[in-house]
Amino acid sequence: MNRRIKLLGSGKYLPSKIVTSSEIDKKLGLSSGWTEKKSGVKQRHHVVSETASEMGAHAVKLALEDANLQMEDIDCIISTSGTYEQPIPSTASLIQEQLNWQGSRIPAFDINSTCLSFVTGLDMISYLVEADRYNRVILVSSEIASVGVNWEQKESSVLFGDGAVAIIIEKSKDGKSKIVASLMETYSEGAHQTEIRGGGTKLHPRNYSNITKEEFLFDMDGKAIFRLVLKEINGFIKRLFNNTNFTLDDMDLVIPHQASGMAMRILREKLGIPKEKYMDIIENHGNTIAASIPMALHEAIKQGKIKHGDKVLLIGTSAGLSIGGIILEY
Amino acid sequence: MNRRIKLLGSGKYLPSKIVTSSEIDKKLGLSSGWTEKKSGVKQRHHVVSETASEMGAHAVKLALEDANLQMEDIDCIISTSGTYEQPIPSTASLIQEQLNWQGSRIPAFDINSTCLSFVTGLDMISYLVEADRYNRVILVSSEIASVGVNWEQKESSVLFGDGAVAIIIEKSKDGKSKIVASLMETYSEGAHQTEIRGGGTKLHPRNYSNITKEEFLFDMDGKAIFRLVLKEINGFIKRLFNNTNFTLDDMDLVIPHQASGMAMRILREKLGIPKEKYMDIIENHGNTIAASIPMALHEAIKQGKIKHGDKVLLIGTSAGLSIGGIILEY
Repeated sequence: MNRRIKLLGSGKYLPSKIVTSSEIDKKLGLSSGWTEKKSGVKQRHHVVSETASEMGAHAVKLALEDANLQMEDIDCIISTSGTYEQPIPSTASLIQEQLNWQGSRIPAFDINSTCLSFVTGLDMISYLVEADRYNRVILVSSEIASVGVNWEQKESSVLFGDGAVAIIIEKSKDGKSKIVASLMETYSEGAHQTEIRGGGTKLHPRNYSNITKEEFLFDMDGKAIFRLVLKEINGFIKRLFNNTNFTLDDMDLVIPHQASGMAMRILREKLGIPKEKYMDIIENHGNTIAASIPMALHEAIKQGKIKHGDKVLLIGTSAGLSIGGIILEY
Repeated sequence: MNRRIKLLGSGKYLPSKIVTSSEIDKKLGLSSGWTEKKSGVKQRHHVVSETASEMGAHAVKLALEDANLQMEDIDCIISTSGTYEQPIPSTASLIQEQLNWQGSRIPAFDINSTCLSFVTGLDMISYLVEADRYNRVILVSSEIASVGVNWEQKESSVLFGDGAVAIIIEKSKDGKSKIVASLMETYSEGAHQTEIRGGGTKLHPRNYSNITKEEFLFDMDGKAIFRLVLKEINGFIKRLFNNTNFTLDDMDLVIPHQASGMAMRILREKLGIPKEKYMDIIENHGNTIAASIPMALHEAIKQGKIKHGDKVLLIGTSAGLSIGGIILEY
């Protein structure tokens, strides 16, 4: 079912501290160039003292400015992030607070499917916007990856960057801008290929003296993920485009999860997408978890790579393992 | 907008270990009867070694049995819990794994608005079921509260119980069973009245040597919450029932969040709901976080307190602070 939604504005916030790949080479005692070659990242931003809700609120303010809107125009805030500022309350509530929107009564809650949180959130909320439940929704992905990386696991630690992005949507009046199709699939045979095992109810931080520090840090089996994604991706694309009038070739731009330079290249080649139709911002952002797809979407708009009416595919993978995609007429 | 959804079945799982209030009196050195009087809880269940995904999978199996369905009939799994088993991946993915549903490709993701997660999840997914995006959805709330309570803060620590509940919904064919209205509001002036400050990106467990253990535990300012809820609740109810043909008096049963005996009594009196129309299972479950409303709904069905066509109000509060409600024709 088509969902008539329109992107009204977007905003991006990156922490001021830049971490270059050559700095990481030095820090980890790696040969010069290793980090950039492995990750495809030249530089990423890491927080110094910023919180996720502060970064999220900054991004929201920029998105409101971009859309020429204010608090009164908004009736829902969703945090679509793979990380959270505190276990309680929801990050969205903390963003509402950071915006000084106390008294607004705007509902605020979180949707989490790790790196796919924005895709899942946009997919779900589009039905509520289509049904006029909400008029204008802000989706915010604000991620602090740097605090959770394991520098001993160099392949994954070099990938990540911090940052936030906010996107404001409403129902498109002319019906031209819309979500044409969307699909999410979860393959739990890969549930333990991407993990942070400690920090929830299973290995609770109150018991930290019995838990090694590594359990609180990101752990990824990149090769196993590749194998599972490559096994499933063609079928996924087929099912996503099923019952649409489009094929992958009809897309004007593909915006993938900015997982790593290599992962993005493998996906692009596997799907046969030409380089110029493939949005790539990993070089100067790194993998910003769930913020990576909406940040690349924001950049695609700001860089003039898409115009109204263009067909755009958002596609990504997440821990779970899940694949998610949205076909959008921008 | 009405959303035609029907509850096909439900299942509840409680850990076998029972903790009575008199045991807690003894453990905390309280006078006999203090715990039960303060909490309204005679007994609650606490996990010994069960994980959230194991409990959730048990509840799902019971719900499938109740509905006479199997894996092939399900096309979406949502974990609507206020706690999570691991920071990564989503609890829903881990439940899919525990069910041995690898290969099913059923999408699995989490919606989190703390104690309101089930209400928010049901509210959102109902639009997707109405629009035929998903045919049959399992919502699972599986909560391990006991690991996060602060026994030094006796007023809150005595409230909580562990457990899981699963509810299966589909589109109602005759259109009789439906969600008539729903509303969520967030008042971030109360964002710090209910917290677990440590464990996310702000006070990350990797830095546990700089974080006191209390920061990883539940902290609640009950009086401040009461004040804010009592200030907002009448307006909330008015806005929830606005544009429906019903008033609160038309409800056959009100199912509140089982927060505490006292909180439930104050809410009931403030709204003028007769005792016999107010679902109360706190005595032998405690506050099971987001599982509390669907568990009380499950009990209402199993105890024959509601029949098809009855009008039911689900209403609760959560950290944030948020209030959420759904008017359901069962």
